[in-house]
Amino acid sequence: MSSLMTHTPKGLEGVVATTSKICFIDGHNGVLAYAGIDIHELAEKSTFEETCYLLWYGKLPSEKELGSLRSQLARERKLDRGIIELLKSLPQGASPMDVLRTAVSALALYDRPAGSQGREANVREAIRLTAQVAMIVAAFDRVRKGKEVVEPDPSLSHAANFLLMLNGERPSPTAERALDIALILHADHELNASTFAARITASTLSDMHSAITSAIGTLKGPLHGGANEAVFHILEKIDSTASDPVDYVRKMLAEKKKISGFGHRVYRTEDPRAIHLRRMSEDLCRSNGQLKWFEMSRQIEQFVKSEKKLNANVDFYSASTYHVLGLDVDLFTPLFAVSRISGWTAHVIEQLDDNRLIRPRADYVGPPYPQHWVPVDRRS
Amino acid sequence: MSSLMTHTPKGLEGVVATTSKICFIDGHNGVLAYAGIDIHELAEKSTFEETCYLLWYGKLPSEKELGSLRSQLARERKLDRGIIELLKSLPQGASPMDVLRTAVSALALYDRPAGSQGREANVREAIRLTAQVAMIVAAFDRVRKGKEVVEPDPSLSHAANFLLMLNGERPSPTAERALDIALILHADHELNASTFAARITASTLSDMHSAITSAIGTLKGPLHGGANEAVFHILEKIDSTASDPVDYVRKMLAEKKKISGFGHRVYRTEDPRAIHLRRMSEDLCRSNGQLKWFEMSRQIEQFVKSEKKLNANVDFYSASTYHVLGLDVDLFTPLFAVSRISGWTAHVIEQLDDNRLIRPRADYVGPPYPQHWVPVDRRS
Repeated sequence: MSSLMTHTPKGLEGVVATTSKICFIDGHNGVLAYAGIDIHELAEKSTFEETCYLLWYGKLPSEKELGSLRSQLARERKLDRGIIELLKSLPQGASPMDVLRTAVSALALYDRPAGSQGREANVREAIRLTAQVAMIVAAFDRVRKGKEVVEPDPSLSHAANFLLMLNGERPSPTAERALDIALILHADHELNASTFAARITASTLSDMHSAITSAIGTLKGPLHGGANEAVFHILEKIDSTASDPVDYVRKMLAEKKKISGFGHRVYRTEDPRAIHLRRMSEDLCRSNGQLKWFEMSRQIEQFVKSEKKLNANVDFYSASTYHVLGLDVDLFTPLFAVSRISGWTAHVIEQLDDNRLIRPRADYVGPPYPQHWVPVDRRS
Repeated sequence: MSSLMTHTPKGLEGVVATTSKICFIDGHNGVLAYAGIDIHELAEKSTFEETCYLLWYGKLPSEKELGSLRSQLARERKLDRGIIELLKSLPQGASPMDVLRTAVSALALYDRPAGSQGREANVREAIRLTAQVAMIVAAFDRVRKGKEVVEPDPSLSHAANFLLMLNGERPSPTAERALDIALILHADHELNASTFAARITASTLSDMHSAITSAIGTLKGPLHGGANEAVFHILEKIDSTASDPVDYVRKMLAEKKKISGFGHRVYRTEDPRAIHLRRMSEDLCRSNGQLKWFEMSRQIEQFVKSEKKLNANVDFYSASTYHVLGLDVDLFTPLFAVSRISGWTAHVIEQLDDNRLIRPRADYVGPPYPQHWVPVDRRS
């Protein structure tokens, strides 16, 4: 191994792999901001559509720009017949993340040919993928339940459309706003594993569908987006066995089991997104008469905090929130993708703006070179 | 940005992202070795099946182990009905790399449920994916040409099976051996972009199908596996316009166009794989009475070497070799995947053996924090 090489900590922890104008994280002070605007301000005042624009263009849209984005999203929501047929042809017991990864990969085959190249063409792809990912998640859930795929309503927001397509009816303003905030909170998070995978794929000058397909498969893992499903499996188990939440989690810790939804590679403080999700979980659980999910979560949070000094992260209160919004547990991670597609595409666009192939090295620690080939009858 | 962060060169050039026992590259001396065995020895003496075993287990197989691997590959070659139906349902003008990415993603839905976890289960998946990727590439080519999908022959090698499935007839020993060597040469190359993407996906503890899907989408790019197709497009253009190869390439250089197939991020010498591919290209072109492709390639190589001091890489002579083997140009990169699946899966297995989430940081260079949200009617 050449001494010119830069050795790095395992998992590239604390290693700066690129510059970026999209997302600012200060892990020591618990700050998350998109293009400089604090996540708390965005969660309180913005919408998911505005947030998408902010991620793609680095500034908030004017009235005209926002109107144009809304129209484009509305136009791009319609699923191609080929994709609906694909969703119907896949095994209906399939994991929705596997289906989403496959359908987005297939979407490349049904996209209109790019008339132009460059940034504007990339943003158009980003808009299309943002519209379609939500549709695919909702449509597959309808298909697997033997229900008709619902047509989107161009007058509704992205959040309301997703709930309409999923449930077949217009959501309440509370549910719509709750989902909108969840979409804003999950939209980007700098170089998380799925975004990093998307940038690597893009860095070979492969296409945006390939990059997003990589991201979806990466998000699926329980150490990333899959964590919100793992959290709800714990809550469900506690509920179905009428266990005491603290006793249950204490037992898990004693058995050295991982409690999903706690701790974060980057934050040394509370995850700033957790504050909003905690509040949303409480409000929604209360208004739906299902406060037990919030109370259970709160007890676990306090116990893990005091016992292990670990803070709840974005996934922890997502679980109870999404459950009360009416989502099946296996749609929690796909819903994360419905939001994060905005950040993934922003990072792919940024990568392509000033590309260099991402190709690190490995430090070889295997059998010393040279070993030799020997005929098969003389091998040990 | 915290001063604790490690800043790195763009594209992570020369950055050691992990340790690995699989592949040794000495870019200054032009050495490539799998588990310590030099690529020249493997190309001359080994087979693709042996090489797979070497990558997965770090040692050459005994007679019994090799026999067992061959039987497993033979068993796993049969494509599920659902995958064949999927290949038939996709637009037949689709890019085979898009199709391969989609089909491998869908394969997750048709895999037998893993009865166990851990290394042995991962190797089983690796064997299955290695068998299936070759089948999918060949089957899609048959389907799009309106031909029947050919059944594999369990008595044949992996290379011979691929050519049988593709062409509907048993290959000549020369063609079989040429493909076998090409498969050995392309099997692994340390932390190239597609392998790195696969390891990142696996590092979230997502599944192997997700990791390989990421790798395929990443390989597709013209700065990576896509380069071999780009090389042949140049050769084809020179041939169809009856141009002088050197004049043609000189003009491309004058127009600042990239000549694919030259230079490499890692090698400062000739790519050790190029030696074998050059010889194979010459032999095959000569025996098929198509020496023009080799001669054209040789002239371009010498000109680019003298003019730009750039060496031919693995992709350059792959182009003429694959063409003479009878492959359509859009199957060149899929054929790269048919080989590299062995290395990708080896790296995924290694990643899972001692996993840590791969999650680097970005250096934020966007609008300074904090910016503020302003109502839409007050935006500039």
